[in-house]
Amino acid sequence: MSDAPARPIVPVILSGGSGSRLWPLSRRDRPKQMLDLLGGGSMLGVTAARVTDGPLFAAPMLVAGAGHAEAIEAALPLAGSLILEPEARNTAPAIALAALAADADDILLVLPSDHMIGDAAGFRDAARRALPFAEEGWIVTFGMKAERGETGYGYIERGPALGDGVHQAVRFVEKPDAATAGRYAAGGRHDWNGGIFLMRAGTYLDQLAAHAPAIAKAAKAAMKGATRKGRRVLPDAAAFASSPAQSIDYAVMEKADKLAVLPVSIGWSDIGSWDALYDVSPRDEAGNAIAGDVLALGARDCVIRSEGPLVAAIGIEDLVVIATADAVLIVPKAQSQRVREAVEALKEQGRGELL
Amino acid sequence: MSDAPARPIVPVILSGGSGSRLWPLSRRDRPKQMLDLLGGGSMLGVTAARVTDGPLFAAPMLVAGAGHAEAIEAALPLAGSLILEPEARNTAPAIALAALAADADDILLVLPSDHMIGDAAGFRDAARRALPFAEEGWIVTFGMKAERGETGYGYIERGPALGDGVHQAVRFVEKPDAATAGRYAAGGRHDWNGGIFLMRAGTYLDQLAAHAPAIAKAAKAAMKGATRKGRRVLPDAAAFASSPAQSIDYAVMEKADKLAVLPVSIGWSDIGSWDALYDVSPRDEAGNAIAGDVLALGARDCVIRSEGPLVAAIGIEDLVVIATADAVLIVPKAQSQRVREAVEALKEQGRGELL
Repeated sequence: MSDAPARPIVPVILSGGSGSRLWPLSRRDRPKQMLDLLGGGSMLGVTAARVTDGPLFAAPMLVAGAGHAEAIEAALPLAGSLILEPEARNTAPAIALAALAADADDILLVLPSDHMIGDAAGFRDAARRALPFAEEGWIVTFGMKAERGETGYGYIERGPALGDGVHQAVRFVEKPDAATAGRYAAGGRHDWNGGIFLMRAGTYLDQLAAHAPAIAKAAKAAMKGATRKGRRVLPDAAAFASSPAQSIDYAVMEKADKLAVLPVSIGWSDIGSWDALYDVSPRDEAGNAIAGDVLALGARDCVIRSEGPLVAAIGIEDLVVIATADAVLIVPKAQSQRVREAVEALKEQGRGELL
Repeated sequence: MSDAPARPIVPVILSGGSGSRLWPLSRRDRPKQMLDLLGGGSMLGVTAARVTDGPLFAAPMLVAGAGHAEAIEAALPLAGSLILEPEARNTAPAIALAALAADADDILLVLPSDHMIGDAAGFRDAARRALPFAEEGWIVTFGMKAERGETGYGYIERGPALGDGVHQAVRFVEKPDAATAGRYAAGGRHDWNGGIFLMRAGTYLDQLAAHAPAIAKAAKAAMKGATRKGRRVLPDAAAFASSPAQSIDYAVMEKADKLAVLPVSIGWSDIGSWDALYDVSPRDEAGNAIAGDVLALGARDCVIRSEGPLVAAIGIEDLVVIATADAVLIVPKAQSQRVREAVEALKEQGRGELL
């Protein structure tokens, strides 16, 4: 194909999250990326499928918590190497491990394992357009349209156009206050940071060494002492533990040179709450997003899922109802962020079997 | 005791109901009277305990569906004879079986097995006051204060006073329309029929023979052909099947002579819905009636019960949430009568395992 790059892009799928915001479906041993939230298979499987189409991509590298190794290998038997974090240290060290496992000239496409992208073709097209800039040393972030003044996301301010839709990124602002976020969403110069980055492995490592040297050093030592078993790569635990736990946004993006943003419209959602899942789910005539053994009588605009007991929902509106064999959640859709409070309370009560 | 009657009253506890209105806690094999709804043991056990205190009462007779024999014997090992209906034919034939098993001069206190009576002493006092009238051939109904224009109940119109609080009953009206019910509740001359009756066994059988001869005849034949096994009495099934299925209210009360009503205030509730259970349950500071493994965060004025999974209820109001191992119900308190719709739908869908 004429548009295939000389050197295929190396996808780096980050699968380290625990996803307690979708409790009780997500659990420590079955994080959000393992769930089939939209009926097409696990989020991780869908994410991997998105980057295995055509000669554009090499086999994906996966970075995951050591505890999830078997589940990931079962879910993705054909993917590339699996780098197992000895403990969770956030995204900056995780990406460093992948960058060190790659060649310095490899172009990495970093992407979360648990986000939805409705338009896979648009996604691949964006990767193609960003590629020349990544080859020139830019870190290209995919900018998602800021649809509302969401305070839980990072915002990227667009600067001068670099060509082919790509802009210089003037500023990264992580989780602004509500007034600022509202101004950003209304202003039209800011995009959400969806956590998808295209860059040379060497570029990332250079920027990390410049702006977060402790992370760069720890990751290097961890990979130097790594052992390999088949596709598994096990970094040295003691060395990795010495890394600060920081996100790529904080450690690199807020400080790096040659930052770029490519605004895209690819049907993205981080599905960060039951409410967010509702927004992207197919619904019945009464506006309900239903999965599993559910009897809905006069229910309206609800998320109702069961993977265990029958759920009989009568006359309810705007609620989230999630039933599993050992836990049932009921919360108004608009309050679905409060699931975290339940998870925290169960932790405090020593109910680890439910987490 | 000076107020003990010469001949103890024979309680007749009717335990034939299925109680689908408290689904999913109540099931065919575990009807409402088997449930511990208020924390003091099963409704049946509490009902039996209410009539085993003091020399006022003889051992209770139980009339129940044949399918519940073992559960009842396990729940009430010390009670009197257990008459097993071969099939459910409503209350008039059921009471006839008990009346035929008793002596004609026995005074029967007929009472449902699944109602709440908060004031047991008041209940016994009412039985004592009604006793002389029952001995004189009156059928004395306990009248419950009509607190609202409920259309699901029967109403009894008070007539001239007979003495000691007992009135002649002028009329029985079963399930009036909303306008009539509202007028009755406002007028102060009508009481709800709570299904508690005091009368001579012979009086009942005479009135039944006069006003519902087919029932009287079928019950007589069924008891003539009955077999006994220990405390169990098994009426002849074919004979009993020939009885019309009618309530005592319809077959006798609406037509009988010498009807009396004793208005009482004894903390009665038929707990005929989750909403009704809420009304009589202890509540936490936020107005929730909670039982079982429940985590309530900002929930208000809800009924939340689990006998299986943990229920995490966050920010919900005025809801009923009932969780069992195989079924979960969510319905607004004000719509809790609609549980029947769920039960009907499950029947139609062939989900008998959930009923």
